[in-house]
Amino acid sequence: MKFILFYFLILLSASLFSQDDSTFIRSIYNTALSEGKAYEDLRSLCKDIGARITGSAEAEMAIEWGKRRMESYGFDKVYLQEITVPHWERGTKEAGWIRMDNGSLIKVNLLALGGSIGTSGKMESELIGFSSLQELKDAPKSKIEGKIVFINQEMNEQQIQTFKAYGGCYPVRGTGAIEASKKGAKAVIIRSLGIPIDKHPHTGTMHYEDSIAKIPAAAISTQDAELLSQILTSGHAEFVLEMDCRDYPDVTSYNVIGELTGKNANNIITFGGHLDSWDTGEGAHDDGAGIVHTLEALRILKELNYKPNNTLRLVFFMNEENGNRGGKGYAEWAKLQTKENHILALESDRGGFAPRGFSMDGTADQIALLASFAPIFKEYDLHVFEKGYGGVDISPLKKTFEGIPLVGFVPDSQRYFDFHHAPSDVFENVNKRELELGCAAIASILYLFDQNL
Amino acid sequence: MKFILFYFLILLSASLFSQDDSTFIRSIYNTALSEGKAYEDLRSLCKDIGARITGSAEAEMAIEWGKRRMESYGFDKVYLQEITVPHWERGTKEAGWIRMDNGSLIKVNLLALGGSIGTSGKMESELIGFSSLQELKDAPKSKIEGKIVFINQEMNEQQIQTFKAYGGCYPVRGTGAIEASKKGAKAVIIRSLGIPIDKHPHTGTMHYEDSIAKIPAAAISTQDAELLSQILTSGHAEFVLEMDCRDYPDVTSYNVIGELTGKNANNIITFGGHLDSWDTGEGAHDDGAGIVHTLEALRILKELNYKPNNTLRLVFFMNEENGNRGGKGYAEWAKLQTKENHILALESDRGGFAPRGFSMDGTADQIALLASFAPIFKEYDLHVFEKGYGGVDISPLKKTFEGIPLVGFVPDSQRYFDFHHAPSDVFENVNKRELELGCAAIASILYLFDQNL
Repeated sequence: MKFILFYFLILLSASLFSQDDSTFIRSIYNTALSEGKAYEDLRSLCKDIGARITGSAEAEMAIEWGKRRMESYGFDKVYLQEITVPHWERGTKEAGWIRMDNGSLIKVNLLALGGSIGTSGKMESELIGFSSLQELKDAPKSKIEGKIVFINQEMNEQQIQTFKAYGGCYPVRGTGAIEASKKGAKAVIIRSLGIPIDKHPHTGTMHYEDSIAKIPAAAISTQDAELLSQILTSGHAEFVLEMDCRDYPDVTSYNVIGELTGKNANNIITFGGHLDSWDTGEGAHDDGAGIVHTLEALRILKELNYKPNNTLRLVFFMNEENGNRGGKGYAEWAKLQTKENHILALESDRGGFAPRGFSMDGTADQIALLASFAPIFKEYDLHVFEKGYGGVDISPLKKTFEGIPLVGFVPDSQRYFDFHHAPSDVFENVNKRELELGCAAIASILYLFDQNL
Repeated sequence: MKFILFYFLILLSASLFSQDDSTFIRSIYNTALSEGKAYEDLRSLCKDIGARITGSAEAEMAIEWGKRRMESYGFDKVYLQEITVPHWERGTKEAGWIRMDNGSLIKVNLLALGGSIGTSGKMESELIGFSSLQELKDAPKSKIEGKIVFINQEMNEQQIQTFKAYGGCYPVRGTGAIEASKKGAKAVIIRSLGIPIDKHPHTGTMHYEDSIAKIPAAAISTQDAELLSQILTSGHAEFVLEMDCRDYPDVTSYNVIGELTGKNANNIITFGGHLDSWDTGEGAHDDGAGIVHTLEALRILKELNYKPNNTLRLVFFMNEENGNRGGKGYAEWAKLQTKENHILALESDRGGFAPRGFSMDGTADQIALLASFAPIFKEYDLHVFEKGYGGVDISPLKKTFEGIPLVGFVPDSQRYFDFHHAPSDVFENVNKRELELGCAAIASILYLFDQNL
């Protein structure tokens, strides 16, 4: 009985859609899968440009790349929106070794955390290990002073949603240097925020506090973290570290914007991904995938000659990784466009994997609208239409425009933290078909929101 | 309102389960993700043994491997069930070239289809191309006689469910040689049944008919098929083929069986995958994944000290790929065990990708039971609980035991036909975490069926 009712409700929901909706969405998917440009666009972004950290020459090239691609696809408007961004560089010297009791050295795979200071030459000191950030916080200063702290906090592999496991370790990377410095440590080494046990270190943003001495911070691969943890369990060891990363003055940069003008031109649906990446790998899943997902979504809508009710504004945000100046700058700029009515924002920044659906940071009514789209996506294997997170880049819009719903594209998350912020985040690790299905899902939901908002 | 009702139903369904059910399933997932043995088992099957076509030394080794693994995990009973299987070998010579009009040669990546005869030395003949099997069927014999037929039928990439796209091309591989031979062709070359355009040829089973002359049949990579199609569009070409594959007399082989005895020992739940693979790659997704999925599921239930109500019988079927003698032999043998009451069968043979759910070949009531499990799996990201296919190995049980429900494990299908029957179906292309989530899903649903049947 229960099941009969359930199917009845599904039918009810399905009747919200016209045959035209179904036909149009089928055309979107067919275009993405048979005449898609996303995979070649991603290849070009990853291989012709590569890693593109804010402030780098590659980031500048990526801006130019983005603008040219948008122009080549014939969007109604293409322009740059100026922002000021931080400029941090890894430098050329970056290495770490475990020195064993007998003096022998084991080289580890290591990446400075983004924003870290350097070591000013070679730094060598005794190691003290902790299994978690909390254990470090609870330890007496006397045991830590003058040493290099190692935090071996693992991502919780038992979390089915890997982003939750990431959230659990995020403070280790973000505040490890602050907590270690409070106890007088000379540097902090963390276990990479990655799930598999492998050789790849994962970088990512970290913070200092004004009143606390800045110390160098780096991540070692999970494989090296396992080894180091074993060594420290049975004996003791020193760590040798050299990094010459440093901050430079802020520089001018840009968000890249392309639009299809709506019949109601001042009603704005903002969507996009972030154009910057970390300075390792190629930023393929993070967030090259989001860039080409959203670029391809607008290209397909244009290709199919869709005339939107609202202005569809594609934004390639700069500087999501270490400052979110692009997201903040866009929200500030949008507020100054006083005629504009911002009705929704959507982001893709969880990789180029097989789509699962969409999550929304919004009111119950807004989420009900999202959920009402579920039946039309059933044949496309999407099933997540629920309350959840939008995205970092679009999050500042929430404060600027009260009540704006923020939508996050939700692909399968199981492999994301194999690659995130690591040298392995390269084009070859993105599957063409999975990427294309993401483009189609995003184009389809933009169409549905445009029709129903 | 609709949504409130919907959530109410979800709650209703959820109340079918006890806290004990939820806790036990959480333990299954934790064990699979934190203390899992599936990935190492798969590594061993792929690397210590490798490809294991029916009748090969590797297939024999795989039987021994399977029995030993089951014994090492302490199942209540472990035994072999004898069957007779076909024995076909690829041989050592296998190559193909396109000869251009000017005499120059282009070597292609090619695999004989399973069951094909050889060429008895080098065969060379003019090519004639068709875009589909139907086009070949419609063509006059006079145009084909004495030539080598090339069928460039593509898998339909616009099908979201890749298995449907595979189904659409299955007759090309299965009956291409029959149809080409009817028109007097000397051999048939098909476009591989794979979705990406790449260098890997995909083999697979093919058939002859007694009254139709047998001709050699091979698959070339999709990349080569695209090239060859272009060449034939603008001009003409010959094909040079050498293969010395052949059939040998049937040999004795075995299904490998392990059991946890139920309180009702004669009530049997059969589940498993197939131990044989094609003779290329390592049979990692097809069906090493299914083997370790189901092995690990029973290991975990045993490890958690679960005492089943019904006998949980794990079967590693032999010869799914070219004869299904294992599946047929098991069904015949099971029929002879007259005290046994076969209540359900489950199979994993769609790769080691992130789980989506389960499909069932069963009655409306049986499918309603399956669907009633959906709420408890929501937190594990499973959403497919619906009518559908069971599996090749368990399909003969349907005829033997009227009304038995057959359940198929449904992982994400988007990448499956990148690897299926190809040299690229290797251990490295299976993701540890995705594999482990499959093991947990299967152990959990076996538990639920055991509790509710």
